Amino acid sequence: MTIEGRLSPDEIKALVRTVPDFPVPGIQFRDITTVIGHPRALASSVHHLADMAREGGAEDIAGMEARGFIFGAAVSIALGTGFIPVRKPGKLPVEVIGVEYDLEYGKDRLEMDPGAIRPGQKVSIVDDLIATGGTALAAIELLRRAGAVVEQALFVIDLPDLGGARRLREAGVDVRTLMEFEGE
Amino acid sequence: MTIEGRLSPDEIKALVRTVPDFPVPGIQFRDITTVIGHPRALASSVHHLADMAREGGAEDIAGMEARGFIFGAAVSIALGTGFIPVRKPGKLPVEVIGVEYDLEYGKDRLEMDPGAIRPGQKVSIVDDLIATGGTALAAIELLRRAGAVVEQALFVIDLPDLGGARRLREAGVDVRTLMEFEGE
Repeated sequence: MTIEGRLSPDEIKALVRTVPDFPVPGIQFRDITTVIGHPRALASSVHHLADMAREGGAEDIAGMEARGFIFGAAVSIALGTGFIPVRKPGKLPVEVIGVEYDLEYGKDRLEMDPGAIRPGQKVSIVDDLIATGGTALAAIELLRRAGAVVEQALFVIDLPDLGGARRLREAGVDVRTLMEFEGE
Repeated sequence: MTIEGRLSPDEIKALVRTVPDFPVPGIQFRDITTVIGHPRALASSVHHLADMAREGGAEDIAGMEARGFIFGAAVSIALGTGFIPVRKPGKLPVEVIGVEYDLEYGKDRLEMDPGAIRPGQKVSIVDDLIATGGTALAAIELLRRAGAVVEQALFVIDLPDLGGARRLREAGVDVRTLMEFEGE
């Protein structure tokens, strides 16, 4: 894909579908399925994220299950790195390390293979959206515990009013996103 | 990535990690995490699959949550198509169609947004591994119900002794894989 063919972040933003009252009344769900289904928007999003990862000096990319896999692995290929899947519990067949984190209701857990990291390796995390940042902070903690240097997190969409990007910056992580939806 | 830099399927196969007795005693788990973590193996796998999709005339790529997202979206970008995520229940914010299918213990369900398909559109499915083929057959049924023409399924790994590829061929789907592990 040439630069000429690349959609701008604003053009990609226009393709995000807003679904009112999902998953609960009052929430405007920003649905990226329509971006993923659009050939130029999908490729353009990935190449914008890959440019940011390159600028951040990423030596490896990690993505969170499941939508982080869609963008993360493709960014890895655009960048020429490997991809580290950060998984839900019980999926990896090896001895894992895990981090529990709080959800609005209850808890969740992320796991990874610590052998996927070379100590000191610079890893950027990639996901489709940052809201409160809980999942991203858990992934960063996990990667750091495995020996990675995590200084950058990349997202297609930021919902700044939910404070996730600010919380990541407080944890020493540079946050780059393609677009924001305010007033959430 | 140039053709010269591409690893052959046999070279990629040598990077698959075999984990004995996972998830239950007696099963040799073929772990693709080590392929995904290897820059050239990841990109080469995707480009081999994209070549097959091109030969099969794919106009769109669908991948099953979660590991199918890793390869599927990247194949879409290599091919210049969109990507259709076939999801676990409750993840999509729109009116979905769903198919239930049997697992060894219990049932599972796949869902998709029927609006992601143009009737008559040629869709190839992509996943990391085919064993009994239950998930793939459910995804094919779902895509066909949404109006897609599904004539090709692409996998990195085939476990032929488990019969999945044969079952897909009986359902009128051409199965292409990068490698086989026999004697499972």
